[in-house]
Amino acid sequence: MTPTLESARKLDRHDPLAGFKARFALPEGVLYLDGNSLGAQPRDAREALALTRDQWRDELVKGWNQGWFDAPERLGDLLAPLLGAGPGEVVVSDNITLNLFKLLGYIIDSQKRARSVILSEGGNFPSDSYIAQGLCRFTGLEHRVLPEGGDLADYLDERVAAVVLSQVHYRTGRLRDMAAITALVREQGAEVIWDLAHSAGAMPVDLNGSGVRYAVGCTYKYLNGGPGAPGFLYVHKDSQARGWQPLSGWHGHAAPFDFEGDYAPAPGILRFRTGTHSALAYAPLEASLRLWREVDMTALRAKSLALGELFQDCLTDLFESKGIEDITPPVAERGSQVALIHREHGYAIVQALIARGVIGDYRAPGLMRFGFTPLYLSYEDVWQAARHFREVVETREYLGPALLTRSAVT
Amino acid sequence: MTPTLESARKLDRHDPLAGFKARFALPEGVLYLDGNSLGAQPRDAREALALTRDQWRDELVKGWNQGWFDAPERLGDLLAPLLGAGPGEVVVSDNITLNLFKLLGYIIDSQKRARSVILSEGGNFPSDSYIAQGLCRFTGLEHRVLPEGGDLADYLDERVAAVVLSQVHYRTGRLRDMAAITALVREQGAEVIWDLAHSAGAMPVDLNGSGVRYAVGCTYKYLNGGPGAPGFLYVHKDSQARGWQPLSGWHGHAAPFDFEGDYAPAPGILRFRTGTHSALAYAPLEASLRLWREVDMTALRAKSLALGELFQDCLTDLFESKGIEDITPPVAERGSQVALIHREHGYAIVQALIARGVIGDYRAPGLMRFGFTPLYLSYEDVWQAARHFREVVETREYLGPALLTRSAVT
Repeated sequence: MTPTLESARKLDRHDPLAGFKARFALPEGVLYLDGNSLGAQPRDAREALALTRDQWRDELVKGWNQGWFDAPERLGDLLAPLLGAGPGEVVVSDNITLNLFKLLGYIIDSQKRARSVILSEGGNFPSDSYIAQGLCRFTGLEHRVLPEGGDLADYLDERVAAVVLSQVHYRTGRLRDMAAITALVREQGAEVIWDLAHSAGAMPVDLNGSGVRYAVGCTYKYLNGGPGAPGFLYVHKDSQARGWQPLSGWHGHAAPFDFEGDYAPAPGILRFRTGTHSALAYAPLEASLRLWREVDMTALRAKSLALGELFQDCLTDLFESKGIEDITPPVAERGSQVALIHREHGYAIVQALIARGVIGDYRAPGLMRFGFTPLYLSYEDVWQAARHFREVVETREYLGPALLTRSAVT
Repeated sequence: MTPTLESARKLDRHDPLAGFKARFALPEGVLYLDGNSLGAQPRDAREALALTRDQWRDELVKGWNQGWFDAPERLGDLLAPLLGAGPGEVVVSDNITLNLFKLLGYIIDSQKRARSVILSEGGNFPSDSYIAQGLCRFTGLEHRVLPEGGDLADYLDERVAAVVLSQVHYRTGRLRDMAAITALVREQGAEVIWDLAHSAGAMPVDLNGSGVRYAVGCTYKYLNGGPGAPGFLYVHKDSQARGWQPLSGWHGHAAPFDFEGDYAPAPGILRFRTGTHSALAYAPLEASLRLWREVDMTALRAKSLALGELFQDCLTDLFESKGIEDITPPVAERGSQVALIHREHGYAIVQALIARGVIGDYRAPGLMRFGFTPLYLSYEDVWQAARHFREVVETREYLGPALLTRSAVT
């Protein structure tokens, strides 16, 4: 039976996370189902940014001793509990591309080049493969691709140094079994670097409990750090003293203010810092991570799945009658998004929805992605978004005037 | 004859750059002579940051199509004229450490590893050596050091692939002859990467006119982009299609939104981008660069030198009587700072000055640095700073109560 508006409102009345919505600054008239691309703005982030802006004006260079310099490790420790990591295991720094390069280089250095292949996955967000390719070209290592749907075990041999995998797939939202895969890779003597771009802040992540040594991720999606907010990098405590990472800048030096002539890596996670970072980029993220510390991640996961299922339940009959393929994995194997394919008109449908203020996103060919962010989406929001989706598809509005507004909204 | 306050005020009355001071938000009661470390805040930067903050709230993911995504190249083109570069030759991205890695890797790739030595300079800001060391360890290349005061010609041979040199030395402020050195290095078949951290925005820089192919720099010192604002990277038009840079992220891809499986470098300067950048970090820098477009760089250089000389002229007799060594190079060979050494009490003198609101900085052993930023320092400011310096030294105030405030101001 298709859920009613009243049933959605009833879920909101019993939602333990309902209070968080007021902590976000959301534009009027928008139903935002693209928090998997760029997260909404916490109200506290606005104030934090203004404070750092004033700190620059008033304190000038002294600001570096007033919290700017050690932001990468302070924010890392704030973030760690969301990832199942401990203090000193996470640093907020650079972006995913650069953090992958650091970890790949670190693993190769720690293995003393005994292995020569980097494996990354095809069909996922390609930047992880791009940086693996750049590193391989630069070092003479070999880059191999695990094809989408391929069995990882078939691609692991004694030459594989490291594998880069996403915990949640950016297109389909498929969730991998991190613990089992980590065990498999490590049995073969290789290392795996997990990309948490679509899982950090979307669900509980248990790096320590899954035997994970290396991970990277971003903070601008589910973690609401702001557009292009700094990335993060995790290294298990037991694996932090194995060598150098190649991007050896002064902020990763053991004594950065001694200005010694030779590089010596800092102890622990700090060696994964590079050079000077933007204090303004860290300010809103710190405010957001403080908000996230209040979140019950079990409740978050429950609501995330419930929102996605509500959206699907509202539209199942429509999908069948209108030739829309729902490629979202089963509940136990999904992240926090619903993925739908309409090969012919997927792009136009997303545009028509945007024209109505329902923001999802489109990835060729044919894929419509809708992300569910439990802190600032209510059940009613999702019900209304589904209603708009139905109206757009049933009336074929996507073929009409909405297309005229495309240039204004994309 | 020691300059009088009246003579300083007269210089201010005839200063063609005097109008810029009101464009900066400066704290009350501070004489800021550390703009060579972190530049002061342009008033327009405050507004620009607030606008981008609101754009995140209101436009959400659409902001990437409203100026965020192409900020690296747009700001690069804004910056180019200050560096003697043309459109499409500069990109604003990452930081100096990462940009050096990109350019070193690019040069090595373009030379097909025919050469095996990276040369960097000793005694200068060490991050440039650190990243050269990291790259060499990672690739099996050899790192060599040009000792401070050594003759570069003695260190160039057919094995040297690239040299990293600062145009202006961070401690002494010594200015190198960029054109002559570039010619020397290129005659030997090597490449030189210029670090412009202490010259961009401090004086006119003429990359094209000096035959320079590669340069990096930062924007948070003389260019007032904000704490840890993004770095920049310059590659001459004729040298932009020679290979890959190793940090090959999706923003440097020829078609970043096609999500192709394989990396293909973007044409031109765009291949030197890496992954997703912070839109908030770029906003104040863009406002500052627009202000900089109004600046007559010849007038800036003249005032920069005049401010430094005024400071020295006010204190020459004191230096002699109090054992303070002025290691500032002659006018034609200096950047925009004065460098003084008091081996025993340099640190305490700088702290006593800070307690009076006169901000310079200290670098062990014994070095006191004072930076002169013509857009927001008046001649009277510099005269007053010199007066404070004299009082602190003559009264030996630095041995007394000022030390008690050390923890509050450093």
